[in-house]
Amino acid sequence: MKNTKFFTLGLLLAGSTLAAPLAAKEGMFTPDQLQEISQELSEVGLEIDPDALADLTGFPMGAVVSLGGCSASFVSPEGLVVTNHHCARGSVQYNSTAENNYLENGFLAASKAEELPAAPGSRIYVTTEVTDVTEQVRQGTESLEPLERYELVEQRRKDIIAGCEETAGYRCQVASFYGGEQYKLIKRLEVRDVRIVYAPADSIGKYGGDIDNWQWPSHTGDFAFYRAYVAPDGSAADFDEANVPYQPEHHLKVSASGLRDGDFVMAAGYPGSTSRYTLLAEVENTFNWTYPTFQTLLTDWIATIEATAPEGSDARVKYESRLAGLNNFEKNLRGQIDGARRVGLVDRRRAREAALADWIAADASRAAYGVAIEELADLSEESAAASRTSFWYRNVSRPSLFSAARRLYRLSKERQKPNAERESGYQERDMTFFRQGLQALDRRFDPAVDKAEWVLFLTGYIGQPIGERVAAFDQALGLTAETTAEELPDLVDRFYANTTLGNVETRLALMDATTEQLEASEDPFMQLAVAMYDYGFQLETESKTRSGRSLALRPTYMEAITQWQRENGTLTYPDANSTLRVTFGNVLGGSPRDGMAYLPFTTLEGITDKDTGEDPFNSPSELLERIEAKDYGRYALEEIGSVPVNFLSDLDSTGGNSGSATLNSRAELVGLLFDGTFESVNSDWDFDPRTTRTIHVDTRYMLWVMDKVDGAQALIDEMDVVE
Amino acid sequence: MKNTKFFTLGLLLAGSTLAAPLAAKEGMFTPDQLQEISQELSEVGLEIDPDALADLTGFPMGAVVSLGGCSASFVSPEGLVVTNHHCARGSVQYNSTAENNYLENGFLAASKAEELPAAPGSRIYVTTEVTDVTEQVRQGTESLEPLERYELVEQRRKDIIAGCEETAGYRCQVASFYGGEQYKLIKRLEVRDVRIVYAPADSIGKYGGDIDNWQWPSHTGDFAFYRAYVAPDGSAADFDEANVPYQPEHHLKVSASGLRDGDFVMAAGYPGSTSRYTLLAEVENTFNWTYPTFQTLLTDWIATIEATAPEGSDARVKYESRLAGLNNFEKNLRGQIDGARRVGLVDRRRAREAALADWIAADASRAAYGVAIEELADLSEESAAASRTSFWYRNVSRPSLFSAARRLYRLSKERQKPNAERESGYQERDMTFFRQGLQALDRRFDPAVDKAEWVLFLTGYIGQPIGERVAAFDQALGLTAETTAEELPDLVDRFYANTTLGNVETRLALMDATTEQLEASEDPFMQLAVAMYDYGFQLETESKTRSGRSLALRPTYMEAITQWQRENGTLTYPDANSTLRVTFGNVLGGSPRDGMAYLPFTTLEGITDKDTGEDPFNSPSELLERIEAKDYGRYALEEIGSVPVNFLSDLDSTGGNSGSATLNSRAELVGLLFDGTFESVNSDWDFDPRTTRTIHVDTRYMLWVMDKVDGAQALIDEMDVVE
Repeated sequence: MKNTKFFTLGLLLAGSTLAAPLAAKEGMFTPDQLQEISQELSEVGLEIDPDALADLTGFPMGAVVSLGGCSASFVSPEGLVVTNHHCARGSVQYNSTAENNYLENGFLAASKAEELPAAPGSRIYVTTEVTDVTEQVRQGTESLEPLERYELVEQRRKDIIAGCEETAGYRCQVASFYGGEQYKLIKRLEVRDVRIVYAPADSIGKYGGDIDNWQWPSHTGDFAFYRAYVAPDGSAADFDEANVPYQPEHHLKVSASGLRDGDFVMAAGYPGSTSRYTLLAEVENTFNWTYPTFQTLLTDWIATIEATAPEGSDARVKYESRLAGLNNFEKNLRGQIDGARRVGLVDRRRAREAALADWIAADASRAAYGVAIEELADLSEESAAASRTSFWYRNVSRPSLFSAARRLYRLSKERQKPNAERESGYQERDMTFFRQGLQALDRRFDPAVDKAEWVLFLTGYIGQPIGERVAAFDQALGLTAETTAEELPDLVDRFYANTTLGNVETRLALMDATTEQLEASEDPFMQLAVAMYDYGFQLETESKTRSGRSLALRPTYMEAITQWQRENGTLTYPDANSTLRVTFGNVLGGSPRDGMAYLPFTTLEGITDKDTGEDPFNSPSELLERIEAKDYGRYALEEIGSVPVNFLSDLDSTGGNSGSATLNSRAELVGLLFDGTFESVNSDWDFDPRTTRTIHVDTRYMLWVMDKVDGAQALIDEMDVVE
Repeated sequence: MKNTKFFTLGLLLAGSTLAAPLAAKEGMFTPDQLQEISQELSEVGLEIDPDALADLTGFPMGAVVSLGGCSASFVSPEGLVVTNHHCARGSVQYNSTAENNYLENGFLAASKAEELPAAPGSRIYVTTEVTDVTEQVRQGTESLEPLERYELVEQRRKDIIAGCEETAGYRCQVASFYGGEQYKLIKRLEVRDVRIVYAPADSIGKYGGDIDNWQWPSHTGDFAFYRAYVAPDGSAADFDEANVPYQPEHHLKVSASGLRDGDFVMAAGYPGSTSRYTLLAEVENTFNWTYPTFQTLLTDWIATIEATAPEGSDARVKYESRLAGLNNFEKNLRGQIDGARRVGLVDRRRAREAALADWIAADASRAAYGVAIEELADLSEESAAASRTSFWYRNVSRPSLFSAARRLYRLSKERQKPNAERESGYQERDMTFFRQGLQALDRRFDPAVDKAEWVLFLTGYIGQPIGERVAAFDQALGLTAETTAEELPDLVDRFYANTTLGNVETRLALMDATTEQLEASEDPFMQLAVAMYDYGFQLETESKTRSGRSLALRPTYMEAITQWQRENGTLTYPDANSTLRVTFGNVLGGSPRDGMAYLPFTTLEGITDKDTGEDPFNSPSELLERIEAKDYGRYALEEIGSVPVNFLSDLDSTGGNSGSATLNSRAELVGLLFDGTFESVNSDWDFDPRTTRTIHVDTRYMLWVMDKVDGAQALIDEMDVVE
């Protein structure tokens, strides 16, 4: 899953959501739900009071934090935070130079004074309060027209957030659960002074690289440490030498004796998005059309970048990260398509809908559910059709400078409204990230590659019948029914020849431009953005209208699901939405394919077996020597005769869970969740207990590396390491 | 391993041989050796009398036959022979037409009258007599000079064969064991009227195709049936409608109840070649130089063919089989290089040699061993150096027509000698295969591809320093130190423009040409062959001289190995040499890599899981329906809740073992050996009991397909199927 990648790229492909929770360990529960299954938790081995898990500011949940896209947790009273290496790697890269190549050599601050600022935009979010605001958001919205409903709900969410953020240093969100059945205000301290404390070398933290991504057996030391800093008065503040380590109310103890096969484990983190309750129409559209179509496009896209930015070129450096992301996404889609075929996802969804329909039909008092579901099914069909028709238009809208122009022009429009009424993403609270986005563009942009990508997308676009194309776009680009793919490069040349948006100062300056100024711009990308504004607005309005309809229907559908499942003895959990969730289960291997088995642990010796001396299998020689010497220290697991490196569990996780604290029955840290097996990538749609397995780095390996290889004894001493 | 491929391609890469037999189930024993370990065989579970296995014409060995490159066995009193699908597939292809596509649909003769002739050259060899001829071959050779020794040994082998083949219908060989320590004359009835009886469709018999080749878990129905026909008087004869089924003295019973995890199994077949006793110098040269160099060349070679014969072209059809073979070989080399690194092959060999040296040093009476081994080590160094220096010359000698010209010119030279004195391969007994070789060339030859290949090899060749190149070859081609790769295509153009060897009639006619006629030929390939004859003869003489030295040294080395191992309680077996061998062990899964396990059986449901509907995962719908219906009949294995498809064992096997009868403790047929796991491909050099696993198709799956899918009830009835 490697959620930073997963997240960024998830956005590439707009997709909605829903699926079948009828199995053993499935469930990304909100902490307050755990009280409902406290008896089950105790029965399966939880030793602490299950009710304690519901208290987000108590122990252990108070120690669990979000990095925005990744999960993490406090492991010392001095604000030390542990997360995945791949979640903190950007900060290591940010501080690396040719002389001090921390990616290659690792980074370990000798003292707090030598801890380095994390990459710009790095945050640690500490939840301080969660309030149910369902009534405030939904009250009186049922009777409205869909678009009005959508807009009123959004306005109320923004208003509630604005009120919450009046306390300086906090960042708030109003999260929607069960498709709009429930809303919660989550208030979080926004730590802005984040520093990198320790990250092992890529040859440990990224061992196996893309080859082992989504693969078991893995041997990745996917851990790294940040520290949260605040102003001396304890308030959130920008980086300042006078800042002091944040003192969390709670932190996790770190286990050095760890787990055995079959042991109880749970993970607490911020899973991003799942589609467990999606209706059949959307599942069919996704797996029969969107994913295969997009996978083909991704393959062409990767080839286009590789051809335009050859290995070793300056352009390639700028696109390495995108290429890795696209390859990662392509592999993910392949896994999803393959997994869906294997488990019979579409048929299973069809069967579930039929079973739900039977349950509804069995009792006349449930008739309203049936009506809502029927309307929601129609809506799903419409959404699927809309996503198919807009597929190529969304792709031709990707080029970096066109996208920047669109956002700038939209900003000028939104600026005409009072801040509180502006579209989310264009409010004053969003401007820091908006500016950073415009700045970061340079590092990932090369005109020749951008143009080649655009030509690729345009080739797909003009491949559509003229009637399915967007007239305004054709006109703006001078495309006709006769335009051939060969003419496209010349057609778009003028955009790259005449634009000034490639200059970062120009882009930033345009954040203050008025709508009229932008409409008078001679920049071809800005002219295109202006020309397409109405069409974009129309697409957005149609989408909002569908969302407004969904807001009226989906809560009813989820109520039906919830009641139906309750009668079947299953507690319904909401789809993942980047809020704190708890999943529990066991250390468990599995049989991903007929004739094969995954063992629950990998060992130090497996690292040596894989090592070729070449990236990504190039362990530091010191590490290989310690393995050769069987210098296991106190970290060995007797059953496997070695130090466990990674382990498998049947926990329910997805992108965003990366870095999640994996806890044992006493809520001690035993690992960090960092990946899922290849057979699990379609679990976002359908949790199959036979094949879904989550991958963790074992704290025994983390401590072993710190102790025996990297000499990070001071950090070990700072943590509460328990046997 | 897929031995037909393996074999053809093994020849691409000249290589010598020898390795470490110090582990559990290792051992390709000659049947007569089994008496020495009869107690062990009984202890591990063999229920029949172990001594019976030593009788090659008794039961069960009398039922085991060779197809020349594959193994097989009689399974009915009417000459019915079972082997691998991939061993008989050429015959299915030979009989296929656009109207009757037996590859796609499978072939099942409704009656004996409808059985079709196998592909030309198909043979079934039934061993009738084995005689030790060591004394006859070796007597008085010790005192000779190396080249004389080599030639006398070869002449004696040819003479013994000639004497043996005076009985019409028999084919004889004098096989060398333990590097020339022992020679055996093997007399075999050569059944020339071979007919194809039944082969399932490719979508069963080749299920998984190249993707699953050398891979576990596999689900390949790799079985097919031939029938041996002889003249009414029982003698071997060419195809004739009057011929009758051969009545073997023995045939195997076929088990329908099969095996369970851990059960005793043994396999009897004709493994081609292993290198278990090779000295360190050769192992180092092979794994540090030859294999990596050749793997790189293979990659370029594959790319060259793919570029010159694009998919869908007529040329591609001719090269499909070579491409599959090269890809197969490349994958094999990668596996070997990877496996050697993983098990530390070079270090292990070094350690074994050191241990042997210690044993020799421990007793002055063993001094002669030490001397011989030292000389053999020098010889290995020399052989390794010779193989490096001739690497590119051997490659530039590959082009089909150059190779044909060389063989024809050599034939004209050999024809000047009495038949008995001719080089092996050029005697009258070899002419049928010689002619077939010249005929078959057309089906795998396209001038443009052949030329592109030649240019590729020549590019490598001219990349060498001029001093390491072959002067005569440079002169014949007009290559100088200044020749660049760009000039090569033009340089070789005249060969393809002016040759007449592309014509099959011309080639065949030249089999009768005299040396003088060929020397007067204006064909550029023939002129090149004539020009290079002396150099080729020199290479051959040097090689024979080294072989002659080896013949004096290697038997002493093997005697040292044998004595040393005997003291360690290990019975030394000879390297594989395409003679009948027996290997025994157990049904056994394994852990090929840290964190992963292979289960011993695959199941019918695994076929459905893999099935995508597209080649090579496109099972017949009838088969999928039978699985869906759980129509297991009497073929299910309770522990796995399904019919076992393929199974793993720790048997010791290699290319040539394909089609080997896998027998249970009562010598009933329980499977057919057809492949090894990817982690096993380097077992030819070093049998690692941790990772070496052999793959078999289970007779329960074979019978299930025959019974439930293909309606081959008549064949089931013809066999002795036992529970």
